[in-house]
Amino acid sequence: MTTKTTYTKTVQPTDVDFSLRASIVSMINYVLETAGVDADIKGFGVKKINVENHSWVLSRMALDLYRLPNKYEKIHITTWVSDYGRMMTTRNFIVTDENNLRIFAAVTQWAMIDLSTRQPIDLRSVDEYGQFLCNDPSPIDGPRKVLPINPEQTVIHKVVYSDIDFNKHVNALRYLILMFDLLPIEIMSSIKPAHIEVNFLHESQYGDTLTVSYEQRDSTWIFEIKNQHNIAVCRVSIKWED
Amino acid sequence: MTTKTTYTKTVQPTDVDFSLRASIVSMINYVLETAGVDADIKGFGVKKINVENHSWVLSRMALDLYRLPNKYEKIHITTWVSDYGRMMTTRNFIVTDENNLRIFAAVTQWAMIDLSTRQPIDLRSVDEYGQFLCNDPSPIDGPRKVLPINPEQTVIHKVVYSDIDFNKHVNALRYLILMFDLLPIEIMSSIKPAHIEVNFLHESQYGDTLTVSYEQRDSTWIFEIKNQHNIAVCRVSIKWED
Repeated sequence: MTTKTTYTKTVQPTDVDFSLRASIVSMINYVLETAGVDADIKGFGVKKINVENHSWVLSRMALDLYRLPNKYEKIHITTWVSDYGRMMTTRNFIVTDENNLRIFAAVTQWAMIDLSTRQPIDLRSVDEYGQFLCNDPSPIDGPRKVLPINPEQTVIHKVVYSDIDFNKHVNALRYLILMFDLLPIEIMSSIKPAHIEVNFLHESQYGDTLTVSYEQRDSTWIFEIKNQHNIAVCRVSIKWED
Repeated sequence: MTTKTTYTKTVQPTDVDFSLRASIVSMINYVLETAGVDADIKGFGVKKINVENHSWVLSRMALDLYRLPNKYEKIHITTWVSDYGRMMTTRNFIVTDENNLRIFAAVTQWAMIDLSTRQPIDLRSVDEYGQFLCNDPSPIDGPRKVLPINPEQTVIHKVVYSDIDFNKHVNALRYLILMFDLLPIEIMSSIKPAHIEVNFLHESQYGDTLTVSYEQRDSTWIFEIKNQHNIAVCRVSIKWED
């Protein structure tokens, strides 16, 4: 067993959008970077497992966004791993501001894959992984399945060099960027809280042709990205609260 | 007068490409972020000048890239401002590795603009700006003009939400990403030194339609981005050394 750990960050100018607040993708990037740093510090990060040609791959996320912090605002990211099974392990995040108010909470599920076979490793076989758990419950409900959509609007994106990350597939955040770029820009600069569900379903490689679509149901936008074989690679729902 | 300052960074997994070395754009991002931090610390950064509704805007860069550092490699970024005139000020960078070998050098030219009028401020009118200079010469020749091209290949890019930065225009790095994504991926993963010249010519706004083109002359690739009014907004040349 281990404890929660808190990391402090200052919102950088490069991470804000035209409204001068961190973008949703920057907030997700902060927590994913923190996941990497925390896992490395505690001894089960990519720094260690890459040696055995393994890597962590993000599978699902559920996010509650209460507000977006301002440029130069200081935020505190608390993270802990609460459980694991054969395929997935759950990492949690609570992001608070200087007044100790919650501005973001996330539950993420990760698989460890073999980089040669691209297949998941049975986490129960990973030596002493249990010691990295912290028994505290997740701050919000875990990620749910996002169902297929009836596309209203669609753009095509050919996977390029800058989409590919160190895991040699399209980076998780790139899917979200492609999706959110379809939203009316007024929505991206609104100040409403939002609940977001993300399902990563399939890897995309350099040269793949992706179709990015959405369907709007009241205040919920549901996005789907399919590849040239009509396989869904990522689905995201974002519900803006009133 | 002031002195050079050195900042240390570790290459993060999110900043490497599929070859597990920092991408060229990540290297440029490191030095531009360092410029922002150094200017803020010394008291002439956006943190201060935004209060007067002013901001720094990058105009030109010349870059010598000797090698790309590896994931988790520690790099040292030394930066100083060497001079200024009415319109432009020159900021220099030398990036070295743990063996004190030079891996990157850059000379950048910046204008201070008024965010309402988008017009440059006369730097000679900025109170005591001269105190921030360091008399050391630039590490390489300053940026040159990149001439128009005869396009060989072209892609169209509609400016989207994620392209826009805190200066409310397309981010400088986005132009480079759009250009380098046109290169054969084998070139991006090659290990040859390169000399890069960057000219930012015109701002792009949300909704603009950009045409990204290149012309190859032996081992030099010259890129040009024009907007829907046929105005060149950015030109870049990259020469791979043998």
